[in-house]
Amino acid sequence: MTRSFLTALLLAATAPLAAQPLPTPTPAPSTPPKYLPTVPKAVAEIRDAALSDNHAWDIVEGLTVEVGQRMGGTEAEARARVWAVAKLKALGFANVHVERFAMPVWTRGPESAEIVAPFPQKLAVTAFGNSASTPAQGIVGEIVGFDSVADLMAAPDSAVRGKIVFVTHAMPRTQDGSGYGYFGGPRRQGPSIASRKGAIGIVVRSIGTDSHRNPHAGGQQFEPGVAPIPAGALSRPDAEQLQRILKRGQPVTLRLTLVSSVRPGESGNVIAEVPGRDPKAPILMVGGHLDSWDLGTGAVDDGAGVAITAAAAKRIMAAGRPLRTIRVVWFGAEEMGLYGGMFYKDVHGREAHHAIAESDFGAGRIWKVDSKFGKAREAEGMALQAALAPLGIVPGSLDAADGSDIGPMIEDGMPAVGLSQDGTYYFDLHHTPDDTLDKIDPEALRQNVAAWTAMLAVLSGGIEPQPRARQRR
Amino acid sequence: MTRSFLTALLLAATAPLAAQPLPTPTPAPSTPPKYLPTVPKAVAEIRDAALSDNHAWDIVEGLTVEVGQRMGGTEAEARARVWAVAKLKALGFANVHVERFAMPVWTRGPESAEIVAPFPQKLAVTAFGNSASTPAQGIVGEIVGFDSVADLMAAPDSAVRGKIVFVTHAMPRTQDGSGYGYFGGPRRQGPSIASRKGAIGIVVRSIGTDSHRNPHAGGQQFEPGVAPIPAGALSRPDAEQLQRILKRGQPVTLRLTLVSSVRPGESGNVIAEVPGRDPKAPILMVGGHLDSWDLGTGAVDDGAGVAITAAAAKRIMAAGRPLRTIRVVWFGAEEMGLYGGMFYKDVHGREAHHAIAESDFGAGRIWKVDSKFGKAREAEGMALQAALAPLGIVPGSLDAADGSDIGPMIEDGMPAVGLSQDGTYYFDLHHTPDDTLDKIDPEALRQNVAAWTAMLAVLSGGIEPQPRARQRR
Repeated sequence: MTRSFLTALLLAATAPLAAQPLPTPTPAPSTPPKYLPTVPKAVAEIRDAALSDNHAWDIVEGLTVEVGQRMGGTEAEARARVWAVAKLKALGFANVHVERFAMPVWTRGPESAEIVAPFPQKLAVTAFGNSASTPAQGIVGEIVGFDSVADLMAAPDSAVRGKIVFVTHAMPRTQDGSGYGYFGGPRRQGPSIASRKGAIGIVVRSIGTDSHRNPHAGGQQFEPGVAPIPAGALSRPDAEQLQRILKRGQPVTLRLTLVSSVRPGESGNVIAEVPGRDPKAPILMVGGHLDSWDLGTGAVDDGAGVAITAAAAKRIMAAGRPLRTIRVVWFGAEEMGLYGGMFYKDVHGREAHHAIAESDFGAGRIWKVDSKFGKAREAEGMALQAALAPLGIVPGSLDAADGSDIGPMIEDGMPAVGLSQDGTYYFDLHHTPDDTLDKIDPEALRQNVAAWTAMLAVLSGGIEPQPRARQRR
Repeated sequence: MTRSFLTALLLAATAPLAAQPLPTPTPAPSTPPKYLPTVPKAVAEIRDAALSDNHAWDIVEGLTVEVGQRMGGTEAEARARVWAVAKLKALGFANVHVERFAMPVWTRGPESAEIVAPFPQKLAVTAFGNSASTPAQGIVGEIVGFDSVADLMAAPDSAVRGKIVFVTHAMPRTQDGSGYGYFGGPRRQGPSIASRKGAIGIVVRSIGTDSHRNPHAGGQQFEPGVAPIPAGALSRPDAEQLQRILKRGQPVTLRLTLVSSVRPGESGNVIAEVPGRDPKAPILMVGGHLDSWDLGTGAVDDGAGVAITAAAAKRIMAAGRPLRTIRVVWFGAEEMGLYGGMFYKDVHGREAHHAIAESDFGAGRIWKVDSKFGKAREAEGMALQAALAPLGIVPGSLDAADGSDIGPMIEDGMPAVGLSQDGTYYFDLHHTPDDTLDKIDPEALRQNVAAWTAMLAVLSGGIEPQPRARQRR
């Protein structure tokens, strides 16, 4: 075959039928490269120094060892506030005080679950917050199982009435924790739906990603007008076991004991400040929540968050005086219904805040920064992105931020920052007995402190070094 | 510098002072390469077919779902025997029966631990087998901590008397499980030593390698003449927490509740056979233990072991008739003191066994084969090594084997095989609530079945295919 013949053959194979001019598609628009500003030397230095931080470890170690669990509204949470005030004063913060509020206090009693028939065996269970109490000897009922909240919703009331509902799901592991939304449905919506349909109780597969016999607790609120019923989580191995038993096709009877009680009580937000040079300048507010679930010691949720944010503020304080006041808030009773956050909003929601930010997603490394300062302040958001990028943090949105306690204030339009922690393993521990100090990687904790310190430095309005004489005293 | 001058310089630097003849060291003897025999085609075929086995999964799934935990001597273990007899008959085994024996039955009651002072908080605890019972309200005492059994031994009685002893350790992860020996000391020896020194109770760091709030149960026997005291395990996170609290230097008071009871009862070994063509030929005995600890469902310890060994025997049965009878033994009450193994030895210890083997180290892949057939039968050991090598199994010793129930018979000189499972993660689950079906990798389970099937095929004396007509019926 000659070369010219081959060429002709190839042309024939690809050319349109007639020799018309070829259309030229419009090229895809190229995304403009993102240029971020340079990082001021002072910011870079205070950021990098924070990579050797020990304050955060000291706080989370002390809080979890010397107080342990501190469920919202309980005597343990009150001890945590006493501990917190002493600690924040010892660290040199100003204006350390508690802002108290009233709340109903739900407390866990004895709990257990066992299959009575056809294959008697115990299942690991724990009640959700605001669950109704069973009698001490529990309730006994036939299990009716559903693969999703939608299936429960679609079931006729007659299939549910007088029974104990079981709902499962297939929550995946995600870095950004987004699985917690949809797959949290069985806990958040399941109890109210089941009650409306006449169920005598409900158990759901734990909202989590691990396979240990440690069920995940969590809050839920019965919808207005819905009668509370006993509601709790089975550990994932137990939920899977129940599914295997249900698949055998015989009626399955469960004895469910979830004793609990509710009484009036109080909680409080612990507040501490680094006073700014300009008392009139809008403040920076950072924090986490001091309360925890009662099953672990609340190391990851949210001992880490209160530790990281206070440590960052302490590092700014040690470096000098910021223009803006930095306010550290350790919220009370977050887990039981954002009580502390709502109370802060009631008391301080009309004060001028330059930015608010909350650390409440564990102790994993920060991988992304979002901010929501409004169009006019996007340059500030980009300065923040630039300062954090060297810590391995992706520049994220300039029009997004979130947080649990601060969520309602963000919705009201307060400027906010979101420092996203890696949540790949967060839901292995979340609300379980396994939320303990040994799960915190000290290096990841330091990266968090460095990011929060850099964020405060960027937004502080400038830090004026203390006179040398005062530092030496 | 000329080249000859350089050479002279180098020679001078390395040569001895005078030009004497250099000594010639004896070369290290080279290890002769290991030649193993070729594997008969019939053995390779039955081995490889077993990589698609479903019998083992079917057994361990059924036992753990339909019975669950089956603590030695309890009603649950009795239900397991009923289940086992039905299952083994359904699989077509001959001579399926139970050999019953009496034993004291220790049963767990309510248990909890809490630090009373200086930092009130709960610790996750579980009692060891044969622990003395506390009163229902528990005992209260000051903690005295030790880093090792040796430190406890060395302490003056006055430092221990009237107190609750705590012993920690640093058990490492190992593939062969060898860490369980030395690092199991706090559980096996600690209670007797503490009691002799006048302690009112003892808690030790769980003998395990995980960091979950699930303490590891386990057996222990008080030495003759030693008064039983309450004895249990803290989970590793709780043991570490207690160490951090002790390091603060204040007296630490613990309330320890470990209620338990002992009553006379019975257990039994479940036995099933594949009859050999020669009823006089020494038999092959394989098995695991049917009982489990009460906290999990005993999937890995030892549901997997009974499943693997019975599945392998079933595969031989399906292939034809072996020369030797294969006896499957599911031992009772292993965990509480090798009762089933001792009873089998009493009843059958004088029968001629061609080889005995036990699967009781989880469900991880087999990585090594040892055998102990005696000098005269080393060729058989090498044939076994050859048959297993293609499964990724290291040819190990020709003069070693072990097993818990069969240990005493091996010591008496019975020929035995040891198929070592990978134990890297075994002590994450061992004797905890986390020993559940989801922890078994079906592919690793199949590799186990293939190895055990190949072992039985090699040692069976030859398998004679069933006549076609009989197979078709």
